[in-house]
Amino acid sequence: MGDPAGIGPEILLKSLCKSEIFEFCVPIVYGNVTSLRNNLQLAGADLKIRTINKPSDAKGESGTVDVIEPVPLDISAFGVGEGNAATGAFSAGCLKAAINDGMSAKSDAVIMGPSSKQAQNEGGFKFAGFRETVNHMTGVDDTIQIVLGETYNLARVTSHVALSDVPRLCSRENVGRVIRQADDAMKSIGYAKPRIGVCALNPHCGEGGLLGREEIEAIGPAIDDAHADGIEALGPYPGDTVFLNMKAGELDIIISMYHDHGNACIKLAEFSTLVNFLAGTPIPVFTVNHGTAFNIAGQGIADETNLVCAFYAAAGRKMF
Amino acid sequence: MGDPAGIGPEILLKSLCKSEIFEFCVPIVYGNVTSLRNNLQLAGADLKIRTINKPSDAKGESGTVDVIEPVPLDISAFGVGEGNAATGAFSAGCLKAAINDGMSAKSDAVIMGPSSKQAQNEGGFKFAGFRETVNHMTGVDDTIQIVLGETYNLARVTSHVALSDVPRLCSRENVGRVIRQADDAMKSIGYAKPRIGVCALNPHCGEGGLLGREEIEAIGPAIDDAHADGIEALGPYPGDTVFLNMKAGELDIIISMYHDHGNACIKLAEFSTLVNFLAGTPIPVFTVNHGTAFNIAGQGIADETNLVCAFYAAAGRKMF
Repeated sequence: MGDPAGIGPEILLKSLCKSEIFEFCVPIVYGNVTSLRNNLQLAGADLKIRTINKPSDAKGESGTVDVIEPVPLDISAFGVGEGNAATGAFSAGCLKAAINDGMSAKSDAVIMGPSSKQAQNEGGFKFAGFRETVNHMTGVDDTIQIVLGETYNLARVTSHVALSDVPRLCSRENVGRVIRQADDAMKSIGYAKPRIGVCALNPHCGEGGLLGREEIEAIGPAIDDAHADGIEALGPYPGDTVFLNMKAGELDIIISMYHDHGNACIKLAEFSTLVNFLAGTPIPVFTVNHGTAFNIAGQGIADETNLVCAFYAAAGRKMF
Repeated sequence: MGDPAGIGPEILLKSLCKSEIFEFCVPIVYGNVTSLRNNLQLAGADLKIRTINKPSDAKGESGTVDVIEPVPLDISAFGVGEGNAATGAFSAGCLKAAINDGMSAKSDAVIMGPSSKQAQNEGGFKFAGFRETVNHMTGVDDTIQIVLGETYNLARVTSHVALSDVPRLCSRENVGRVIRQADDAMKSIGYAKPRIGVCALNPHCGEGGLLGREEIEAIGPAIDDAHADGIEALGPYPGDTVFLNMKAGELDIIISMYHDHGNACIKLAEFSTLVNFLAGTPIPVFTVNHGTAFNIAGQGIADETNLVCAFYAAAGRKMF
């Protein structure tokens, strides 16, 4: 459900008004019945809110929202748009319960609604971000974060590091590991043999070594290694045109070498339809690409599109 | 006119069929009358081709193409779609004559039609690219190449260098020089006080030094230096969202630190409407963002949009 002080309950109810979601999955809400009922009018949702005790009780019937209440929530302990320790502990507790049930094979995927990192930290869940939180809750750290969009899917070899550290980190081993993780991740959401477009690090793919040797010494060999393992790794592609290759339908995912290259392109191309997917965990975990939007909570104006995209992505489908 | 074996003559004639071009400029073609006449039917152009001897003879009347023939062209010396030393020497000779006239204040801007670097090299004009060719012809090397688009304008601090060299090259001095060059360039095409968005080098602008110190030690100070000179330099902006700032109308040009960041975004956003603009020369020189397209020359199917964009850009206007 995400943070109960944010737009999470509203966009969740708006999403579950869409009967097509029930055609491809059984939604099980980890949240709070009172909070959801309080948001029904706001969301313009004519839905029945029903408490269930365990995932297998969920019926998956359009018109009814099946809710597990894994942790208590005192709805007088926070104001609309005012996340705090209570709402953070609640959203993290719901996530933990959903992940635990997923790891016990009681569900197939988890979606985290919009949550506040700050509120979760205040509530005792002190992690740097989504990935670190889920890594801790699943006990796995060899995970990969993938961004899934309408047209583009993206993984990165490096992320929050200085640009001067990027060339060293784009080693044959690291690039190869991300290719394999991306291959596994895409297979886990229904791509039988994902076509993985691996970006170059240097302009014009290094122009045969004139503009850097990482393509020759690390990225190319990593692609060869992946081929030897039967993975459809392609490239290296010039970084300034690889997104056009994907737009043309030639690729299923792009592996960018660093943060601002890939992220700049996908955010420019399709900001509202991007879903974060954490793979390599015992249970795949998805989350929306936006925050709690405390500033517009309670107004009924929140757009549920991104969460609906997450439902489709979690079910291995595309919304568009 | 560009290379006479390519699509240059065809798209030039198609462009000059548009009467609106004659409302804001006086087109003077440096080319060949026979070649243009041979392309009239192909281009579906009902135009009169007229030889003139000097720029001041051009009338700027819609329906008539005024052509200076600065160098000879034997049209039996090449086949359609088959650029060679003769076509390369011709296209470079036309460019040189146009630049010379521009430098003598006989024109206000030069547009290079689609030309073949290989053919020009075979024809004796041995330069690495557009910028190097124009630098040589104008005798200036403190030039800056800017990409002008419908929505985005872009300059770069570094270009064809290894990514590992980028952090060192993004010095306070280099960033500052490019900001000033970009300011001059944008003023030269009609922006009174261009709003210049300067990108960060590191993810999240370096997060206060945690992810690299170039924002603190070089990019930020370069922006301050520019401010001291009265330049509207803004930022540093996070590289993954700066294009959204420009899309929202907050900026007139983005200065990216390296090749694949900025280029990937603009090529993805608006491939067909990008015009290259070489500024810092005595005469501004523009060129299309595509090649000679030898493979489709002579078929009448070439799209003139990009050249029309170049006419608008050279006149300090926007086509869209």
